[in-house]
Amino acid sequence: MKKNLLIIGAGGVAQVAAYKAAMHNDVLGDIHIASRTLSKCEGIVAGILEKKALKRPGILAAHQLDAMDVEATKALIRRTKSQIVINAGSAFLNMSVLRACMDVGAAYIDTAIHEDPSRICETPPWYGNYEWTHRDECERKGVTAILGAGFDPGVVNAYAALAAQRLFDRIDSIDIIDVNAGSHGRYFATNFDPEINFREFTGTVWSWQDSQWTSNSMFEVSRTDDLPVVGTHKTYLTGHDEIHSLSANLGVPDVRFWMGFGEHYINVFTVLKNLGLLSEQPVTTAEGLEVVPLKVVKAVLPDPVSLAPDYVGKTFIGDLIRGVRDGVETEVLIYNISDHEEAFAETDSQAISYTAGVPATAAAMLIATGQWECHRMANVEELPPLPFLDLLGRMGLPTRVRDARGDWAFEELDLPEPELVAVRTGKVS
Amino acid sequence: MKKNLLIIGAGGVAQVAAYKAAMHNDVLGDIHIASRTLSKCEGIVAGILEKKALKRPGILAAHQLDAMDVEATKALIRRTKSQIVINAGSAFLNMSVLRACMDVGAAYIDTAIHEDPSRICETPPWYGNYEWTHRDECERKGVTAILGAGFDPGVVNAYAALAAQRLFDRIDSIDIIDVNAGSHGRYFATNFDPEINFREFTGTVWSWQDSQWTSNSMFEVSRTDDLPVVGTHKTYLTGHDEIHSLSANLGVPDVRFWMGFGEHYINVFTVLKNLGLLSEQPVTTAEGLEVVPLKVVKAVLPDPVSLAPDYVGKTFIGDLIRGVRDGVETEVLIYNISDHEEAFAETDSQAISYTAGVPATAAAMLIATGQWECHRMANVEELPPLPFLDLLGRMGLPTRVRDARGDWAFEELDLPEPELVAVRTGKVS
Repeated sequence: MKKNLLIIGAGGVAQVAAYKAAMHNDVLGDIHIASRTLSKCEGIVAGILEKKALKRPGILAAHQLDAMDVEATKALIRRTKSQIVINAGSAFLNMSVLRACMDVGAAYIDTAIHEDPSRICETPPWYGNYEWTHRDECERKGVTAILGAGFDPGVVNAYAALAAQRLFDRIDSIDIIDVNAGSHGRYFATNFDPEINFREFTGTVWSWQDSQWTSNSMFEVSRTDDLPVVGTHKTYLTGHDEIHSLSANLGVPDVRFWMGFGEHYINVFTVLKNLGLLSEQPVTTAEGLEVVPLKVVKAVLPDPVSLAPDYVGKTFIGDLIRGVRDGVETEVLIYNISDHEEAFAETDSQAISYTAGVPATAAAMLIATGQWECHRMANVEELPPLPFLDLLGRMGLPTRVRDARGDWAFEELDLPEPELVAVRTGKVS
Repeated sequence: MKKNLLIIGAGGVAQVAAYKAAMHNDVLGDIHIASRTLSKCEGIVAGILEKKALKRPGILAAHQLDAMDVEATKALIRRTKSQIVINAGSAFLNMSVLRACMDVGAAYIDTAIHEDPSRICETPPWYGNYEWTHRDECERKGVTAILGAGFDPGVVNAYAALAAQRLFDRIDSIDIIDVNAGSHGRYFATNFDPEINFREFTGTVWSWQDSQWTSNSMFEVSRTDDLPVVGTHKTYLTGHDEIHSLSANLGVPDVRFWMGFGEHYINVFTVLKNLGLLSEQPVTTAEGLEVVPLKVVKAVLPDPVSLAPDYVGKTFIGDLIRGVRDGVETEVLIYNISDHEEAFAETDSQAISYTAGVPATAAAMLIATGQWECHRMANVEELPPLPFLDLLGRMGLPTRVRDARGDWAFEELDLPEPELVAVRTGKVS
């Protein structure tokens, strides 16, 4: 049982995590929010208080923190007596925050993989380049570190674990499909940090096919699916975090990620990329100023947080899983639908932030209650999926399952076997 | 009679001006090239020597100069004993170089209007904001200052003067049409300094219609013409320097400028503009670096000079002039066709630089011989067009005229009247 939560970051995901944590401060204890820009943290605190979202009276505080500074982070964790840390800051912070958590013995949660600012789409598996090099230290110290506990990665990993443990005898392929069918009404914007967003699409697209790493370029391979609620959408094979753990942990030959893009997004992206404006490598202006083009693109684009009030429509994220059950070829789609306006009404954020932030807080709650306190580093598919999906259903992210028989709420599912205890080395089928 | 030429700048236009000056150093005397980056000037000198382009043995020298520094510019003019200065540097330099020329009594020539880095598309007439405020001082000191002596502005102004003096009794409209029908083979590039290029299109499009200033936005108004050699092209109403002097000097009710753009150019431009990446106003990155987006776009785009070796195809620039002659409604198209490969063979530059650089050197030669030494500030339409067009024909920019009777070389034209002496106040018809 752990108490008191420190959330690092003040973007959309951190905001949702904070609102949801406040709504469950009976489980989580004190809630602290820290980022480089104190005013952003104070804004989140003010928003929570205005919505009267604190479940019961308790500490809700904003702090200034440069989380690249490990000692400062450790000091803040100690000072706030935080036993759980959600790192919802930049993807460049993971290693620093994890270091701080391992040093002080706090549980660590993040929602996206670590990135080196000067590199993109490195050699797979990505987790092997950074996070997993600390597996042994976490185990030795008994530190719980849950990697990628947003929606994708995160909930989609739990969907895969659910399928592997309860719905299939053998899984042949997992296709994760992410479609934002909403509209923000701007000429162009990214739904989270533009720098991280674009970095996903500028390098090699790595996928796991025929049990090996396969490389493509962005927008090279597409598929079109008729999806529940949001209808027919074209999606593109995209490199993404969860492929890099599911491929290692589930023993499934094909693990792919597909993201929906409209033609306008692709056009803007293509222009920027071809001109070199999405480069993470610095260029020098005629005046001698050294500057990273991608950071300038980020500076001119709308702050993703600012999109939320005008966002309408729904998001679809799900796992299309094919395999065999009881000797029969089977296809199951496990998914969530979220609504931008409903997310905003509850957390002052759009659904992209909502779907990533709620699971992080759910993971913190499962650590607080002991259900996910595993005393080691784990990706989400290595942890029991049922309590997570059950909690998410109660927190605003219901799971649905479409199979040959129909379209079901997760709670209506007839789950045939008792849950297996997930094992560290994967192969949970 | 003036001698010795200082060329300021080391881009494509300066390079062409320097090559052409070297080919006529019997008229011009010593040739000096100066810019912020000495190595670029040295590269031009090396190119001229390699092509053995110096007409006769003489001084050809490279210099380092920050032409924003008026005293340094004056010192270099004096030290090199230059009596004529071609300012082919950035459009931000005009006022500094003009100041230096007025102070030391050197003749001044430029090819584009002065711009303030922090402002775009200012109140018309543009010349009234900067250059023309020095008219009286030039006249008082007897300094010859020829404004806009490239192709457009420049040669197209001479075409208009020719039409006004020799081909029409009354001109109703002048439509200047500029089409680059060539191809550089890159994804995207501008043909001259991207910063200056884009600045032309990001603000209000000013045109002179019904004898008043009319405002439109870029790509709002288009026309399609079947043009000699290059064929049918769509062009767009564009703000441009020469409108701002022709409207004041020729008493013509409609003066418009039309530039050809392909759909790809428009798409890239539209994306960059809508994102705010063409802004001349600084933004601040998340890391606190203040940077002008347009300067970053410039830094990632190909150096226009680098396009020249691969450039193929032709350029068309001309004046479509409508009016009355001998009581009959008449339409005349006065134009030039240039070829990118031929320009490169002669000057190591593409035709956009060639068409702008050759007229500047021709203007310098007309000052050197006294034909254009007017001892005052003048736009090109205020100066005798015949010696200019005649010299350009011999220097590689032949003029052709298409009218109801056919398509003629300028030299074949039956010019009805002796040339009038152009007067400062315009109305030369």
